[in-house]
Amino acid sequence: MEFNGIEVIGLVAAVLTTLSFVPQCWQIFKTRKVADISLTMYLIFFIGVILWLVYGLMIGSLAVTLANSVTAILVAIILGLKVKYSNK
Amino acid sequence: MEFNGIEVIGLVAAVLTTLSFVPQCWQIFKTRKVADISLTMYLIFFIGVILWLVYGLMIGSLAVTLANSVTAILVAIILGLKVKYSNK
Repeated sequence: MEFNGIEVIGLVAAVLTTLSFVPQCWQIFKTRKVADISLTMYLIFFIGVILWLVYGLMIGSLAVTLANSVTAILVAIILGLKVKYSNK
Repeated sequence: MEFNGIEVIGLVAAVLTTLSFVPQCWQIFKTRKVADISLTMYLIFFIGVILWLVYGLMIGSLAVTLANSVTAILVAIILGLKVKYSNK
């Protein structure tokens, strides 16, 4: 796989937008506070990420599939924590 | 541009992951509460989205460019509101 500058930019973009959810997960774990986080946003985003995952599989793109698998897991964690801590 | 099923999935995924930030913006506008939202997440995500935008321009993909332009605007709004309401 020929690694040119453009693909490196795409890869860095994928890593950043994927791992950006880690600080939000960490903050919720620490504070157990979720009131200001929009459940609607994360539900819609989750469905979108699953569709990106399906799209990545169908076009045979490892980068799209991998990035969106990790994002789906992180977003699912945030959704779970949002539901768990919402009524507290 | 030949519109096959796979591209439709990609388009719907792009629309969902892009517009998912609207409910978060709306919630902040209504509540002015941002404490539970991770500034680090949105900073990293913003940089990632800008790189996706550059990537989209470089590969000549209207979908990637458009989706990430809208996402960048929405995420910039959330970042602005997070900074504005953080010390309140």
